[in-house]
Amino acid sequence: MRATVMYGAGDVRVEDVPDAGLREPTDAVVRVVLSCICGSDLWPYASMPSSSPGRRMGHEFLGVVEEVGPEVSGFRAGDVVVSPFTWADGSCDFCAAGLHTSCRHGGRYGADGVDGGQGEAVRVPQADGTLVRLPVGEDSALLPSLLTLSDVFCTGHHGAVTTGVGPGTAVTVIGDGAVGLCAVLAARRLGAERILLMGRHAERTDLGREFGATDVIAQRGAEGVARVRELTRGDGTHAVIECVGTGQALETALGVVRDGGAVSRLGVSQYTKVPMGFDAFMRNITLTGGAAPARAYIEQLLPDVLDGAVQPGRVFDRTVGLDEVPGGYRAMADREALKVLVRP
Amino acid sequence: MRATVMYGAGDVRVEDVPDAGLREPTDAVVRVVLSCICGSDLWPYASMPSSSPGRRMGHEFLGVVEEVGPEVSGFRAGDVVVSPFTWADGSCDFCAAGLHTSCRHGGRYGADGVDGGQGEAVRVPQADGTLVRLPVGEDSALLPSLLTLSDVFCTGHHGAVTTGVGPGTAVTVIGDGAVGLCAVLAARRLGAERILLMGRHAERTDLGREFGATDVIAQRGAEGVARVRELTRGDGTHAVIECVGTGQALETALGVVRDGGAVSRLGVSQYTKVPMGFDAFMRNITLTGGAAPARAYIEQLLPDVLDGAVQPGRVFDRTVGLDEVPGGYRAMADREALKVLVRP
Repeated sequence: MRATVMYGAGDVRVEDVPDAGLREPTDAVVRVVLSCICGSDLWPYASMPSSSPGRRMGHEFLGVVEEVGPEVSGFRAGDVVVSPFTWADGSCDFCAAGLHTSCRHGGRYGADGVDGGQGEAVRVPQADGTLVRLPVGEDSALLPSLLTLSDVFCTGHHGAVTTGVGPGTAVTVIGDGAVGLCAVLAARRLGAERILLMGRHAERTDLGREFGATDVIAQRGAEGVARVRELTRGDGTHAVIECVGTGQALETALGVVRDGGAVSRLGVSQYTKVPMGFDAFMRNITLTGGAAPARAYIEQLLPDVLDGAVQPGRVFDRTVGLDEVPGGYRAMADREALKVLVRP
Repeated sequence: MRATVMYGAGDVRVEDVPDAGLREPTDAVVRVVLSCICGSDLWPYASMPSSSPGRRMGHEFLGVVEEVGPEVSGFRAGDVVVSPFTWADGSCDFCAAGLHTSCRHGGRYGADGVDGGQGEAVRVPQADGTLVRLPVGEDSALLPSLLTLSDVFCTGHHGAVTTGVGPGTAVTVIGDGAVGLCAVLAARRLGAERILLMGRHAERTDLGREFGATDVIAQRGAEGVARVRELTRGDGTHAVIECVGTGQALETALGVVRDGGAVSRLGVSQYTKVPMGFDAFMRNITLTGGAAPARAYIEQLLPDVLDGAVQPGRVFDRTVGLDEVPGGYRAMADREALKVLVRP
């Protein structure tokens, strides 16, 4: 089959790889109907050292079950399913606590002999714990929004949940990428009253306004912090969702959070240290979030996606075939595309 | 009147200072019956640069109201009261949210013309918002335990509350100082099932066991982390309360916290950066806590102190008069005393 392999910074290829097939009795093989490129894929695209075996790419996908192992009881061939961006057994104590990203028998796509999502098919380990059936056909117009349940919409929701967003909350969202926009949507869905979106790309922040942002702050760094404080009587907001992952974005987050408030980080951390010394201590700032346990949220968010109450799929602004994936990476890295759908 | 002034590292003096007196209509003057030396006083005692005006010391005290300003309605001369370690108006939005340490009209003792607690009397700003009346006489045997409501017991409670300690929780407490022992007591009071206390001073950890610690870990650093993990099936504990304030203690905290868990920091941070990069991100670790809003907790904790259900005053193992305060600092710095009471 064909699948995406990254060999180093800027070097993404679509190649023949071994067909996805059952290995464990708990596996399923899913033919990919829709996949996409993630903002987090851009980090290795910018800096990955050359690797001769390369790295299989993609962790967001939905598709049709082709085959299941003998111990898979919840799915059968023909089911339309979405996968969260990590696989998990669904039954260990971490999964029971809603932290599927720390599953005792889970793992990541594109690693340890597991396929990536940017390909024709994927062997899904722990299929019963991982997959969620979708009550739609594989030609449904809802598929792009349903695909965001794999990662970005659940990730935005994780930011809103971990910062305690609810009716009446004021929240700052840092970053106008797909996760930032989904965080806006998720915060709005949970009843946030005021949503300040920090981002510089007008076409993205315009979508952010449609998703529920009440204010857009185009300034960055100290100027951006000053502007948020100006808009919030000097205080900042109780909830801050950081959707970039750089040290600068995190510093901004700590600058705009209100005393006693929480910063949730959703952008994969590109820094090793967090500047939370005496000032953050005295102000009782909480740092929370992390890799979203998407699987824990899919059932909660699915109904609103199915009935169109939210349309997170609007973050996709370009669609490519599998062979055009390398161009999709370039377009996202060059900020020509917000988020790229892949139809193998 | 006589009061404690620090002039630099190791240089604590008891001197004549201007008498405490009303300045604002919202002030009260409290004659100090009992005060104490705080672990956090040891940081400047170790490293404060020479200062010629010096710094008034002490932020934990209880005593008797001598005089109140015309706008103070809740207290009158003769009331026995305890003060939390910061003063606050009790009515702003931060106070209403239980974050009195960030009060819009609050501040700290020993700064900006406000007396410190290690003296004969204190002018208490915002008396109505700050003080709590105690239904005891000034000769009550409960006074040492009641004094811990000023800081250490409320601070330990803050750690337990911010990490979500409740019935059945497993919690690691790092540090066997007064705050650490109070955190053990607070966690036990909230129903923690397993309390792992990390500390090296046997007489302190023995008291920790009496306060509710189920396991004592004498090892530090990587060895200490390994031991906690060994005791918790490799996972660490969901709640971790860091009661030291050094970078090493914080690293230990991050090493013993379970995926998805929370580290609450109570030790005044002596570091400027927190090592929470990719690993903590993937593990969804939360960093929380900070300067405890003691005022928010006093009423909740008071009944259990009054009826003897908890005896946090057992952390005091030495009592000095006001003139002996410099020796009290030395004893605490040399680890000869755990926590020193001051009876002016």
